[in-house]
Amino acid sequence: MPIELSLNPLVESIKPSYIREILAASAKPNMISLAGGLPAPELFPMDLVQKALLDVAQVPDYFQYGSTEGDVALRQWIANAWRTPAETLDHDNVLVTTGSQQALDLIARAYIAPGDRVLVESPCYLGALQVFKLAGAEIITIDQLDDGPDLSQLEDALKLAPKLFYTVPDFHNPTGVCWSRDKREQVAAMISRRDVIVVEDAPYRELRYEGESLPQLSSYLNKVSFRLGSFSKTITPGVRLGFVIANRAMLAPLITIKQAADLHSSQPLQHMILQMLEDPTFGEHLARVRDEYRRRRDLLCKLLRDQFGSAVSFTRPHGGMFLWVSFDDACSDIIAANALACGVTVVPGTAFLDSDCAASNSLRLNFSYESEDVLAQGVSRLHSAVYM
Amino acid sequence: MPIELSLNPLVESIKPSYIREILAASAKPNMISLAGGLPAPELFPMDLVQKALLDVAQVPDYFQYGSTEGDVALRQWIANAWRTPAETLDHDNVLVTTGSQQALDLIARAYIAPGDRVLVESPCYLGALQVFKLAGAEIITIDQLDDGPDLSQLEDALKLAPKLFYTVPDFHNPTGVCWSRDKREQVAAMISRRDVIVVEDAPYRELRYEGESLPQLSSYLNKVSFRLGSFSKTITPGVRLGFVIANRAMLAPLITIKQAADLHSSQPLQHMILQMLEDPTFGEHLARVRDEYRRRRDLLCKLLRDQFGSAVSFTRPHGGMFLWVSFDDACSDIIAANALACGVTVVPGTAFLDSDCAASNSLRLNFSYESEDVLAQGVSRLHSAVYM
Repeated sequence: MPIELSLNPLVESIKPSYIREILAASAKPNMISLAGGLPAPELFPMDLVQKALLDVAQVPDYFQYGSTEGDVALRQWIANAWRTPAETLDHDNVLVTTGSQQALDLIARAYIAPGDRVLVESPCYLGALQVFKLAGAEIITIDQLDDGPDLSQLEDALKLAPKLFYTVPDFHNPTGVCWSRDKREQVAAMISRRDVIVVEDAPYRELRYEGESLPQLSSYLNKVSFRLGSFSKTITPGVRLGFVIANRAMLAPLITIKQAADLHSSQPLQHMILQMLEDPTFGEHLARVRDEYRRRRDLLCKLLRDQFGSAVSFTRPHGGMFLWVSFDDACSDIIAANALACGVTVVPGTAFLDSDCAASNSLRLNFSYESEDVLAQGVSRLHSAVYM
Repeated sequence: MPIELSLNPLVESIKPSYIREILAASAKPNMISLAGGLPAPELFPMDLVQKALLDVAQVPDYFQYGSTEGDVALRQWIANAWRTPAETLDHDNVLVTTGSQQALDLIARAYIAPGDRVLVESPCYLGALQVFKLAGAEIITIDQLDDGPDLSQLEDALKLAPKLFYTVPDFHNPTGVCWSRDKREQVAAMISRRDVIVVEDAPYRELRYEGESLPQLSSYLNKVSFRLGSFSKTITPGVRLGFVIANRAMLAPLITIKQAADLHSSQPLQHMILQMLEDPTFGEHLARVRDEYRRRRDLLCKLLRDQFGSAVSFTRPHGGMFLWVSFDDACSDIIAANALACGVTVVPGTAFLDSDCAASNSLRLNFSYESEDVLAQGVSRLHSAVYM
C-alpha cells in the first residue's frame, strides 16, 4: 500500500455516511426530501440578512483576522440569552464555533483519548457518532424512550466509568423526544454522583411548538457541563455558526485546538448574526418559523395517520424538525431504498445506530423543509414505496 | 484530578502560543504592530465586498446547508487558476476549507498517526507545528537557507522514513525565503524517490513584488501532493476561506473528517469570494495590494539599514509579508519583551522553533499591516528597545 493511502486508522472506523448519499439524491429534480434536517429556505429572514450584511460590509475591521474565542459582543449576547436564573455567565463562558458541529469535535479532541467510553442515546445523531469515533471512543448506547433515556440502562452504563455523556434532551434527533421534567431531574441526580462530562446539545431547543420550555439538563447538575447551541435552525445553516457554553477552565483546551483547527470562525458573519439577533423584529421571525413548522408537523402526522392507519406508530413531537415513524414488521433500509425509487427521500433508522449489523423498523421523517403541498405528495410516494 | 481536567495528552503537548499573547498586546492603544501576519485593512476590496454581499443576500439558497466539498463553481475557478500546463485539474480535485489552516488540520488528522515523523523547515509556521503535534507527530526540522532547505539535512531526514514533508516554498513564514528554481528541482528529485506526502502551503504565492513566478514544487513531483491556498492574503482573512488541491483519492478522507469537523465552510462567503474573483476589476485590486506592500517592504528595509547599520542582517524578500532580521549576539526573546515595553510588537525567532529550549537571535517583522508613517515610528521604537 503506498504511504499516501495508509490512513490514520481512526478515520477508517467512520462508516461512509449513508445520509450523505441520500441528501445527494435529494438534490435531484422532482425528488421530495423528507430526509435532511434542512430548515425551510422560504422562512429565512432575508430582509434582516440584507440589512445586516449591508452594514457589515461598511466595516473593514470585520473582515480582518479575529479572536479565536469569537466576537465579545456576540458571546455576551449568547451568555445573556442562555443564562439560567442561578447562573453567572458572561462572554468568557462562551466560545463561538464553526457550527455547533465544530463544538462537538473540539470537545472530543480535547477530552477523549482512544479507548475512552462515551455514552450516547440510541438512536443518535450521526454527526456525533462520527466525532466520537474519530477520537477513538468506545460508544455505549442507552435506549431512548418516549420521555428520555432508559434509566436502568443508564445506571448500568455509568458503572462502566464513561468519560462523557452526549445527549439531546430537547427534541432529540432523530426521535423528536423531549425529556420530561422528571427525567431531567432523575438523570441529573444519577449523573451528579459520577465523574462524567455532560455534553448537552440543544440545536432544536428554540423550535418548540407547544407546551412550556423545560429547564436544560445542565441547570440541574451540580457540576460542569458543555452546552451547545446553533444558529442553523433559527437563522440560517449556511453561515456555519454555533457556540459552546462552559466554565473557562473547561473551554481553554477547546480554544487551543480551535486555533489549530481554523483560527477562528467567520468574523463578518458573526457580526451579521449579532445585528440580526438584536433587531427588534427578530422575535417575530422566530414566531413565524414556529407557526409554519407546527402546521407542517400537524399535517405530516395527519397524512401518516390517514394513509397508513395502524400500520405505523409515532409520537407527535412537541418541537424540532423530525418525526420518528415505526412500521410493524418492516425493514427501514428497504423502505428507504424503495422510497428513493418512488421519488421521496427518507432516512432509515439504521443510519442512527452505532452497530453495523443493527436492524431498524423506523424512519426519520423531516417536516421542516417541504411545503404543505409537497409534504402531502411525499407521503403518497412513501405509501407507494411501503406497499410496492 | 477531576475527570474534566484530564485532557487528551496530545493537547497538553502544544505550547501556549506566545504569538497569541503578542497579538493581544498589539490591540492595545498606541501599540505599533510589526508582529502579526495581518494584511492592511485599508487595502481590503470593500467596494467589491459590498457589491458581492448585496447580490449574495438576494439568494436564500446560498444560506442553506451546502456540500462538504464546497461550491462547485468556486472549486472549478480554483482548479482553473492553479492548474499547471501539464495538469488536468477540475473541481473534484479541490476541497474548500475554513481557512487553509483547516486544510492542514484535516491532512494531519487523516494521514498522521501518533509517532509518525513529519519534516518541516526550521523556523516554521507555528500553526503548522501545532497541527502536527496535536496529531502526535514527531517533528524533524530542516534548516531553511537563503534559497530553500538545507539539502544535506533533508537527505538525512528522508532516511528516517518520514510520513510527510510540510513546506512553504513561496515567501516562507517566517523567513520570507523563496526557494530558487534549482532548489525546487533538486528537492523534487530527492523527494520523488521517497514515500513521503508533500504538503505545499502557498498562502503568500500571489504576493510577489519582483522577479518571475516560479513553478510550484508540486509541479516537479512525479507523485501526489497536497497544495494549499488561501484567500486571507488576497481578499480578506476574516472570512476564513482557503482550499486544498490533490487527487480525489487523497482528498476523500479529508472530506470525511471535514464532515465531522464543521460539515462545510460558509456558503454565503464562498459565493461572495467567487463573485469577487470573477469581477473584471479584481486584478487591479491585487496590483494595488502588491504595489503598496512593495513600498512598505522597501521602506522597512531602508529604515533598518539606516538605523541599525551593520548590527542587523536580513535578506530583502521578493514577496510575502515578513522580513527576517538577525541581530549579532542578541537574544530575540529579550528584544521582543523590550520592544513591547517600547510600544512595538515583534515576534522573536524562538516562537517558530520546535524546541522549548532553543535560542534565536532573529525577529520576524511584518511590513504589510502598518502604514509607512507608522512603520518608521515602529522601527524607531525597536531601536530604543534594542539599545535600551
